Amino acid sequence: MRLGIVGYGNLGCACERVALDSGFFDDICIYSRRPDVKSPYKTKVCCQSEALDSGCDVLVLCVGSKSDMPQLGLSLAEHFNTVDSFDTHAKIPEYLEKLQRINLEHKTLSFVGIGWDPGLFSLIRGLFCGILPDSKPQTFWGKGVSQGHSEAIRGIDGVLNAKQFTIPKEAALKSVREGRGNKLSERDKHLRECYVVPKQGANLAEIEEKIKTMPDYFAQYDTIVHFVDEKWFLQHCSGMEHGGFVVDSDINCGYRNNMEFSLSLESNPYFTASVLIAYAKANCIMAARGEIGTKTILDIPISQILPGDWIDKARAFI
Amino acid sequence: MRLGIVGYGNLGCACERVALDSGFFDDICIYSRRPDVKSPYKTKVCCQSEALDSGCDVLVLCVGSKSDMPQLGLSLAEHFNTVDSFDTHAKIPEYLEKLQRINLEHKTLSFVGIGWDPGLFSLIRGLFCGILPDSKPQTFWGKGVSQGHSEAIRGIDGVLNAKQFTIPKEAALKSVREGRGNKLSERDKHLRECYVVPKQGANLAEIEEKIKTMPDYFAQYDTIVHFVDEKWFLQHCSGMEHGGFVVDSDINCGYRNNMEFSLSLESNPYFTASVLIAYAKANCIMAARGEIGTKTILDIPISQILPGDWIDKARAFI
Repeated sequence: MRLGIVGYGNLGCACERVALDSGFFDDICIYSRRPDVKSPYKTKVCCQSEALDSGCDVLVLCVGSKSDMPQLGLSLAEHFNTVDSFDTHAKIPEYLEKLQRINLEHKTLSFVGIGWDPGLFSLIRGLFCGILPDSKPQTFWGKGVSQGHSEAIRGIDGVLNAKQFTIPKEAALKSVREGRGNKLSERDKHLRECYVVPKQGANLAEIEEKIKTMPDYFAQYDTIVHFVDEKWFLQHCSGMEHGGFVVDSDINCGYRNNMEFSLSLESNPYFTASVLIAYAKANCIMAARGEIGTKTILDIPISQILPGDWIDKARAFI
Repeated sequence: MRLGIVGYGNLGCACERVALDSGFFDDICIYSRRPDVKSPYKTKVCCQSEALDSGCDVLVLCVGSKSDMPQLGLSLAEHFNTVDSFDTHAKIPEYLEKLQRINLEHKTLSFVGIGWDPGLFSLIRGLFCGILPDSKPQTFWGKGVSQGHSEAIRGIDGVLNAKQFTIPKEAALKSVREGRGNKLSERDKHLRECYVVPKQGANLAEIEEKIKTMPDYFAQYDTIVHFVDEKWFLQHCSGMEHGGFVVDSDINCGYRNNMEFSLSLESNPYFTASVLIAYAKANCIMAARGEIGTKTILDIPISQILPGDWIDKARAFI
């Protein structure tokens, strides 16, 4: 089986390592807009435009959701089976419909939104609501870096560098676990903590005000801003940890049920890569059986990401 | 859609209530060995032998795993689609293979081991190992009643009634969460607390000794025995709560990942019934599409237990 990794940032690098460790793929190639970059594992790095001639069995798409993903995903699905972690929740339905037409016309198989959220958390939200149709699972993220919010701060005049940590509030988690969480606001659920390296001579009060009042990003949250120097920032803000909780507490037939799923990850990109590569292997197996079309993580049985035959899987996990 | 519930103990009664609440089934019938029992919801109760003429779209099997299940499951699958919560883990592979032959020959669709363990916990163990192939998820049960262990105590001379609560040990949970759980013994993981109503004049020391040294059931655990009177027993030991944890802490590519799934249920039978009915609905839909054969919870996509079309599900849960 031949794997192509499209995009060679943090996530692409992590996918390369996880795919090499898996031993599943006979051949791995990286497609980057910077084909002069060297792989630490001596994997071949090619120009993105060369992907079309690669004969890959599956492509894992590790480009940014904001800019490249929808267009690149649609155009590559004309030629390849693909697995992506497209994470712009609001745009996923439209993307799925467009992709489905392309997959069916070109007889390819695409998996969309494969990571941990969207991804494993989506699966769990669906599981909880499938079992208890009236339940309202609540999702918490963190503690971890929000890339989008960090970028928004870096766009402010006078900011040299910045990172924003999303932190779930303990009191809100407790409320949800006790079944009192249905009326929580965004402000109640998460705290946004920002570490900002200002440019020399910048107006700190103005930067702080701009962050705290930024619509959509910070205005509706409790936000804490710390100004730090570059040395401190590099020492304390370079981690890649993330995680979160899907929590549900619900009365059914007069009895309370608490269901909870949680992740605490030292490295967001390496864990996301593990999910992507697990489903890339499943994509190869399902495509070889003749399956085509567009699937979300809800549509793919867990048995497809497990090795062995049917009885082996039952013996190991049931 | 017509649902048959086979067996009318705690689990059968709970399935009836959950199925009625679901609004999915046009008709529900109960098949019992005691057809003179009345349903509180005025559901028709028939003799088990009448099931064959019922024309049910799916049967939910709520008979005991120890005695009735394997044989009854195999014989009913000649005529019906079935969903069961067969929970004798060690016998599931053999049952699956026999059932698969029957399902394929008679073009029926059976789901096996549908509950929370086996069931949701199986799904989560599979998910964790699919994403991180080297991970070793650990399962904890409780606090909740073990029916098998309670029965074993009730079989001892001089015992009038008994219940056994399985309690996960906090120290063991902590070890597993910190990645130090691979060498835990059975004794390390769970405590077995027994409430025993002795017969008048029974030798209490002898009963306690027999419980604590009972091979397979108690000898390999820390066991606490309380002797109580019947009034206390009825007041304190009639709950149906249960739950548990699937915990995984694993190093992958040099980074630690913690994954955890937990349930805390006020009523074990009502929650198990919710799982069974969710998958009974899925069974009807999949069978109507022409699917046949034997499936475990690993083989059934989550999307099958969710209402709405494909895009609706993505919009709601991804």
